[in-house]
Amino acid sequence: MSQSFTEAEIPPNLCHLKNLDSLFRCPICFDYLDISMMVQHCSHNFCSLCIRKFLSYKLKCPVCNSAVTESDLRNNRILDDLVKTFQLARHQLLRVNFESPPVSPKT
Amino acid sequence: MSQSFTEAEIPPNLCHLKNLDSLFRCPICFDYLDISMMVQHCSHNFCSLCIRKFLSYKLKCPVCNSAVTESDLRNNRILDDLVKTFQLARHQLLRVNFESPPVSPKT
Ligand SMILES: [Zn+2]
Ligand SMILES: [Zn+2]
Ligand SMILES: [Zn+2]
Ligand SMILES: [Zn+2]
Repeated sequence: MSQSFTEAEIPPNLCHLKNLDSLFRCPICFDYLDISMMVQHCSHNFCSLCIRKFLSYKLKCPVCNSAVTESDLRNNRILDDLVKTFQLARHQLLRVNFESPPVSPKT
Repeated sequence: MSQSFTEAEIPPNLCHLKNLDSLFRCPICFDYLDISMMVQHCSHNFCSLCIRKFLSYKLKCPVCNSAVTESDLRNNRILDDLVKTFQLARHQLLRVNFESPPVSPKT
């Protein structure tokens, strides 16, 4: 649920970057994972708010349908760090690929 | 413990890509995470073999020193997918950045 670039901005010659981008997204809201929670027995990951809202309605994993309660959720903190760093790296990479070379610093 | 590029190959103008690379590495062997296991209460991640070998010697987390036994380890499968996809993306990105533009396809 963070500010994001659109998928369309990743050029076709960077298909693996696009795949990496997809892995960082929540299967419920399709935005980048925001406070990632992992269901401990099936290892599926969701935004904390998204999965809690979902579980208040149905007690199963939205991806694999296994039985889940709130007590099966675990913070997956490395994913939060990865999502933040990926967004910075992605922004930097797309600038390097598409913008003109940097101007020499003022001396 | 998989085949990897050296850190030195990432140019300084891609510092966020380098940070992302570091997050995908095991704090024990410093190589890319291989069968990632998360310690469930502290959320630290290691290669399965690395952390099991470590725990046979000391029953604590190598990063935060909290008490850990094998039963506290959980597979973190999304990390395995991310590490594989990151390596492909990284290889593609560094080629795009450093190689000459692609030749037009034969028609
Ligand atoms: Zn979500
Ligand atoms: Zn699941
Ligand atoms: Zn390791
Ligand atoms: Zn720890």
